[in-house]
Amino acid sequence: MTFANVGTLGVQPGRRDEVVEILTRPSSTLAGSGCLSYEVGVSPEHPDTVFVTELWVSAEAHAASLQLESVKASIAEAMPLLTGEFGGFRFDVVGSPLR
Amino acid sequence: MTFANVGTLGVQPGRRDEVVEILTRPSSTLAGSGCLSYEVGVSPEHPDTVFVTELWVSAEAHAASLQLESVKASIAEAMPLLTGEFGGFRFDVVGSPLR
Repeated sequence: MTFANVGTLGVQPGRRDEVVEILTRPSSTLAGSGCLSYEVGVSPEHPDTVFVTELWVSAEAHAASLQLESVKASIAEAMPLLTGEFGGFRFDVVGSPLR
Repeated sequence: MTFANVGTLGVQPGRRDEVVEILTRPSSTLAGSGCLSYEVGVSPEHPDTVFVTELWVSAEAHAASLQLESVKASIAEAMPLLTGEFGGFRFDVVGSPLR
């Protein structure tokens, strides 16, 4: 069942674009690990937040991706730029009016 | 610029699946209005919540969709089933590691 992970990452003042750069680097590993969509964004109203919305083929594929070396390296690189404030939610996709 | 709207809808106890049914009815209007993705979901940990993650060609396209007769009719139909508790966030997509 398609799994959605939607989140906000609090970033240290002025470091937002560095976090965006890390998260948007082209990754063939993600696609090969069951990642269907991975969109990174920003909002002028929240200058110290990075937004991410992800779709995966399953919750298991998402969980497994966190153990990939390339993903662990990206997390380690971004972590010093983050405040530790995380938001968001996870859910199982059950349908779409577009299908 | 691609726009993301991610939200949670609080639903009256026991009415979640009715709200899901309303939100997932096939809609050619949405696709023709600039909606790129519209995923509806649920979570066993939050039985009285419906989750939605949407991507649009622009924030303007999303705003305009709320004035469509078919969308207004869906909102009117779902409203009595909701608690009035809404969560989520909106952001501008700036990239993806999959592209």
